[in-house]
Amino acid sequence: MEKKIITISREFGSGGRTIGRKVAEALGIPFYDKELVDQIAMESGFAPKFVEEHGEHSPSGSLFSYAFAPQGVPGIMNGLSTADFLWNIQCNVILQLADKGPCVIVGRNADYILKDRPDALHVYVFADTPYRAERIVRLYGDSEKTPEQRLAEKDKRRRVNYQHYTGRTWGQAQNYDICLDTGVLGIEQCTDIVVNIIKNSQE
Amino acid sequence: MEKKIITISREFGSGGRTIGRKVAEALGIPFYDKELVDQIAMESGFAPKFVEEHGEHSPSGSLFSYAFAPQGVPGIMNGLSTADFLWNIQCNVILQLADKGPCVIVGRNADYILKDRPDALHVYVFADTPYRAERIVRLYGDSEKTPEQRLAEKDKRRRVNYQHYTGRTWGQAQNYDICLDTGVLGIEQCTDIVVNIIKNSQE
Repeated sequence: MEKKIITISREFGSGGRTIGRKVAEALGIPFYDKELVDQIAMESGFAPKFVEEHGEHSPSGSLFSYAFAPQGVPGIMNGLSTADFLWNIQCNVILQLADKGPCVIVGRNADYILKDRPDALHVYVFADTPYRAERIVRLYGDSEKTPEQRLAEKDKRRRVNYQHYTGRTWGQAQNYDICLDTGVLGIEQCTDIVVNIIKNSQE
Repeated sequence: MEKKIITISREFGSGGRTIGRKVAEALGIPFYDKELVDQIAMESGFAPKFVEEHGEHSPSGSLFSYAFAPQGVPGIMNGLSTADFLWNIQCNVILQLADKGPCVIVGRNADYILKDRPDALHVYVFADTPYRAERIVRLYGDSEKTPEQRLAEKDKRRRVNYQHYTGRTWGQAQNYDICLDTGVLGIEQCTDIVVNIIKNSQE
């Protein structure tokens, strides 16, 4: 089956976003990450920063989150919580992006949202904590929390969000078509593997 | 890090054993599967058929299983259940095989037993139920149970055994270095991916 859409789910700091960008470049197809966030933000009327922070995180259910919601929310949101409203918009945006043509989509539970598209290849990227800790400090700098705390918090938020909206277990191999440990295999090699799978499927 | 040992864990019917054999052939290194079972059997004094049936399955704890145990068992087994005794022997055999040199080891929880060897590449192979059902009927023929029942039973026994002896979750991506869906990627391509990873690590 020819594969045209690539979804990349990733542990924080594993290099999944970098692999996504490199795969898109190698194949000459669009790469959706921040662009996707912006599009979701525009469609929802939420502030882009709010979407970026909440799009893959736990459904909070807190009243506070409504403070960031667009004007006229009660009507638009149709009784949904902010998180559920955002989830619905994310699903629609991702389904539309995939319909537009070949692309790479990083994060946002796209593996689940596009699970019924036989032309989608679902990739999961992970690595052990020391590898990711070194990488996030190098790329994003230090913060008041230890790198291990930052990884644990972000991983937990992604895991809870994924479980809540998909009913699946985050990181379970059967949810994806291929899972890659970047700490062992390296980002370049993981990129090559994914690019080759796509090219082979199109021959 | 140069990789010399390949462990392959697999869902029943996914083609993991075939990939293991092909990888071993391509690299010109030994392949341990039934041979491993035989060696375990010889060392333990258990009948090969008993080892084959119980080596990856649930720890039964049933008294019945002692009927298959070697003579003089109470002394040899040192108070362990048959399953625990077999597990200890499996661990020793697998550690010794890896010490002997490059090889492919299929099943027997070798990913966990060799988790501390940095020269080991741990591969998990899986596929969806329809792909595996078609495959087991084609390879092993029909039986009184449906293919789906056979898959569910065998998967469950492997999962319970793995969980019991390793404390890990069967099929969780983080237990392995790479996970491959043979139904999507095909056995030939999965073989090539693993062979290339090993070759690249040795350059």
